[in-house]
Amino acid sequence: MPTEAQRDALEVVLVTPRNPLNIGAAARAMANFGFRRLKVVAPFAPTWREARSAVGAEELLQNAQSTECLAEAVADATLVVGTGTLTYRRPEQKVVLLPLLAPLVSQELARGGRVALVFGPEKHGLTREDLSYCQVMVEIPTDARQPSMNLGQAVAVCLYELAAGEGRGINQKTPGGAEPLAYTEADRAAAASGRLDLVAGVIEETMRAAGYSPKTMQAANRHDLRLTLRRLTLSEHDTRRILGLFRRILWRLKHIPVGDDKPD
Amino acid sequence: MPTEAQRDALEVVLVTPRNPLNIGAAARAMANFGFRRLKVVAPFAPTWREARSAVGAEELLQNAQSTECLAEAVADATLVVGTGTLTYRRPEQKVVLLPLLAPLVSQELARGGRVALVFGPEKHGLTREDLSYCQVMVEIPTDARQPSMNLGQAVAVCLYELAAGEGRGINQKTPGGAEPLAYTEADRAAAASGRLDLVAGVIEETMRAAGYSPKTMQAANRHDLRLTLRRLTLSEHDTRRILGLFRRILWRLKHIPVGDDKPD
Repeated sequence: MPTEAQRDALEVVLVTPRNPLNIGAAARAMANFGFRRLKVVAPFAPTWREARSAVGAEELLQNAQSTECLAEAVADATLVVGTGTLTYRRPEQKVVLLPLLAPLVSQELARGGRVALVFGPEKHGLTREDLSYCQVMVEIPTDARQPSMNLGQAVAVCLYELAAGEGRGINQKTPGGAEPLAYTEADRAAAASGRLDLVAGVIEETMRAAGYSPKTMQAANRHDLRLTLRRLTLSEHDTRRILGLFRRILWRLKHIPVGDDKPD
Repeated sequence: MPTEAQRDALEVVLVTPRNPLNIGAAARAMANFGFRRLKVVAPFAPTWREARSAVGAEELLQNAQSTECLAEAVADATLVVGTGTLTYRRPEQKVVLLPLLAPLVSQELARGGRVALVFGPEKHGLTREDLSYCQVMVEIPTDARQPSMNLGQAVAVCLYELAAGEGRGINQKTPGGAEPLAYTEADRAAAASGRLDLVAGVIEETMRAAGYSPKTMQAANRHDLRLTLRRLTLSEHDTRRILGLFRRILWRLKHIPVGDDKPD
């Protein structure tokens, strides 16, 4: 997970997007993953106006810059990464699969570099000319039958990978501060083994009272029950609920007149 | 990377999406990452019509099913995963960060299970009620200042992770080194969501028959029961045992003479 300052050294560059909604979608994904610097290359004037005046267009869009050409947009970047699929092109530069991009970008940011992540227009993506400004082309591993992604979704997937990718092997905190594998409160206080035995006892008694467990099966059922209760990792709260229910059932069963113990 | 057959055992479920473009965007992301089965819960009729008749709407959208409720959509799933942010909710089930989801889903698919990946409506996401059908909630690690993702982008990011995540080679283990939510042998055949609903129904009936669940508490008890049954990751074998026991108890309780329903 890059630091705040490092994220500000990463720019998302959209080359001539046609649809203002896609500029908004790119901006939203950037905000979702904590990136702030957006440049748009040679936007159509109405598209650009509409995107920036959209309801909910935030600071990020207000601060977005437009440039005349890609060369200008990436002029101060030390690592320029083009995005796309290999289906329709034979790239002339190094290709990196998206899941392997994060270490590359992190390294560049960590040593004080500036990274530009470049996305082509909706229809055909980056041209060979565009790609000639990129040191690296990153490929999003898509299905060969439908390789071409929606622009806003491609931006989201790439930024997700850059934000989360580095942390995968590491014990990392989420932005909210939660543990990666958080458990709810109810889970936390696991029931002690003795409490599970108490539960097992009450269930066993209920089985007998209901005529569910024939005498020959009782040892096997007890064993299964003990195993099952452990496997389910019941919380203390669960055990209280189960005890309450089964005690109630037991009380009711014991008020059944003697002799009435066979179904049908 | 799941196999073709395994991907077909994964369903994307959209709960009441408002915007037809988002259904289309979800479908496109599915095609990009090689998934094909889409269900939409209680769609608004015009939304649903518009989405399916969209230009370029492919086989995937034509084959998409709509269901009346979430329970129906996930009835045959053995692992139901809800998506969302923790910013506005305190989940009652296990939470897994998205980068750690792939091994969990792969494991379930590899042993022949069926997975449902559930996305809430655009405005507020999944409700507490929706989430009570989910064993696991997956959190996309977004920035705390803008945690809420666009629906189509959230689908893209999740499916990207599921398609590519396994290939990284570094995310097989959770940070602690333990298997994420490891399953034992006895768990192998996880109970489908619809079977858990059946168990919940029988237990609820028993609660009523035993006078355990006062009328004012029944909705809350039903909700708790649904959550608990999911959290315990019951196997099909467990559900058969529980159904058998509770049906027997019910039979016995119903043979109690009328009027004798108060303890002491």
